[in-house]
Amino acid sequence: MSIVTVGTVAFDAIETPFGKTDKIVGGAATYIAWAASYFTKDINVVSVIGDDFDMEELRKLEARGVDTSGIEIKAGGKSFFWSGKYHMDMNSRDTLATELNVLLEFNPVLPESYRTQDILMLGNIDPMLQLNVIKQMAVRPKLIIMDTMNFWMDSTPDQLNQVIKEVDVLTINDEEARQLSNEYSLVKAAKKILTMGPKFLVIKKGEHGALLFHENQVFFAPALPLEEVFDPTGAGDTFAGGFVGWIAKTKNISFDNMKTAIIYGSTMASFCVEKFGTERLQTLTQEEIDERVQQFVQLVQFDIDLVD
Amino acid sequence: MSIVTVGTVAFDAIETPFGKTDKIVGGAATYIAWAASYFTKDINVVSVIGDDFDMEELRKLEARGVDTSGIEIKAGGKSFFWSGKYHMDMNSRDTLATELNVLLEFNPVLPESYRTQDILMLGNIDPMLQLNVIKQMAVRPKLIIMDTMNFWMDSTPDQLNQVIKEVDVLTINDEEARQLSNEYSLVKAAKKILTMGPKFLVIKKGEHGALLFHENQVFFAPALPLEEVFDPTGAGDTFAGGFVGWIAKTKNISFDNMKTAIIYGSTMASFCVEKFGTERLQTLTQEEIDERVQQFVQLVQFDIDLVD
Repeated sequence: MSIVTVGTVAFDAIETPFGKTDKIVGGAATYIAWAASYFTKDINVVSVIGDDFDMEELRKLEARGVDTSGIEIKAGGKSFFWSGKYHMDMNSRDTLATELNVLLEFNPVLPESYRTQDILMLGNIDPMLQLNVIKQMAVRPKLIIMDTMNFWMDSTPDQLNQVIKEVDVLTINDEEARQLSNEYSLVKAAKKILTMGPKFLVIKKGEHGALLFHENQVFFAPALPLEEVFDPTGAGDTFAGGFVGWIAKTKNISFDNMKTAIIYGSTMASFCVEKFGTERLQTLTQEEIDERVQQFVQLVQFDIDLVD
Repeated sequence: MSIVTVGTVAFDAIETPFGKTDKIVGGAATYIAWAASYFTKDINVVSVIGDDFDMEELRKLEARGVDTSGIEIKAGGKSFFWSGKYHMDMNSRDTLATELNVLLEFNPVLPESYRTQDILMLGNIDPMLQLNVIKQMAVRPKLIIMDTMNFWMDSTPDQLNQVIKEVDVLTINDEEARQLSNEYSLVKAAKKILTMGPKFLVIKKGEHGALLFHENQVFFAPALPLEEVFDPTGAGDTFAGGFVGWIAKTKNISFDNMKTAIIYGSTMASFCVEKFGTERLQTLTQEEIDERVQQFVQLVQFDIDLVD
């Protein structure tokens, strides 16, 4: 299956307890495309950048088979820039700078060839842009996956709910699931959210793994216990990229296959956090991915003999 | 295999967002014995109570096959009492009262028949009492499991380390693992703790499941996603009771069997939190336990086809 993804392509400057970067390439769509490129070559990106962008990084994505013709380049514009500093626990961070720049007047226009693709992956971006992209699809995609965040729940809840109504899979973190549903129990939160539109809900819990809810079923995938998290930036987007990449590759949108997709998403995220930015995602081999997936299998495997 | 366990047998008064109790029976050894009693009938409890205790509750344990002859009854003494109030998230609580009472001068003396048992389960109690009990064993038990908490890391770290050196399995929560090892990463924390004495380390993460470390191996067991946590009191002790009960029943102390033991421990804990105190643990059926274990199997089961 082919994938269209919309999201930011941007500059980040990151500081962690292990070091800091100058401006490096980041953005949700960048991470999604890199991660998905290990599973399928039919990935099409919709975004906007300024002509200050590092075009060499786009060439690298194209070399992986990613179509970047949907990335608008604004002459004289500056690319979206985010800067943040992580605390020692790596779970909390301070935003040092957010410069929307070209994102302020982003009005995505999908190339004709994008409009009939199979899967639409909506990266975290203004819900109105996500809706705009959905409307441009000539044929309703076989699967629409949406990532979002608490910022939109606070600032534009009505628009957010409008998009949520249109999607098949929603991916949010545990705090966001609680906020969106006004329920503390994640089981109750999931039940409520599954009445709001999505047929599948993925709740990302960072180092504590991820939950997949569908009808009355639930699946839990652990995160791999890591010696060191070097830079968590982009882990959620990389998870989404691995998830959607696996589904595109296998052409199977069943609950059972989504469980496997979550394992691949978690696998890709576990690589992402090992280095700054997309660095680790640019040098992966199939063998490394296979080996790490086997670590997930080992991690949760147990035998049950019922008590008699 | 037979089990000796030392720990508190006490009164608790609990307040949660769902209600509150008067003085009800609690204590680590109580929960451990109830949970283990679903797997083996050879359980021997060492503790101390005052003659204010609800002796009917001891009779119920005895009816489950638990030997309570090691529970000293201090004439005129008052039983240990703890009172606490849980916050809405159920992960944090305020202690309203801690009255040590008979615990202040507890000097455990093991009945002769206890001293040659197979498994010693040290509930969370003063490390000096744990060590005292270890020393009374005539034959080194085949397995010594120790539970403890941050309080002893703060107040008597040297004594605590002395006991840790003597045990095979240590069970603590994630924050305690970080404190004990002075490492933030749980993988690094586990490596360090496994050099301090124990061959196995169980890190309990509450609603986020549990990790088992042994040599270079790691196993992860999820917690069951629950609609409602009614009262978390005793969940960690119930986990330990299910864990040790399974090992006693199967007479197998391998890493592989400990993985299964953790699933049974998590299963018993998932029942514990459904009602106040030990109430739910007193009415379980084998069918309910089997059914819930199958939910754990379902929860983490996935198929992997390697990327080709």
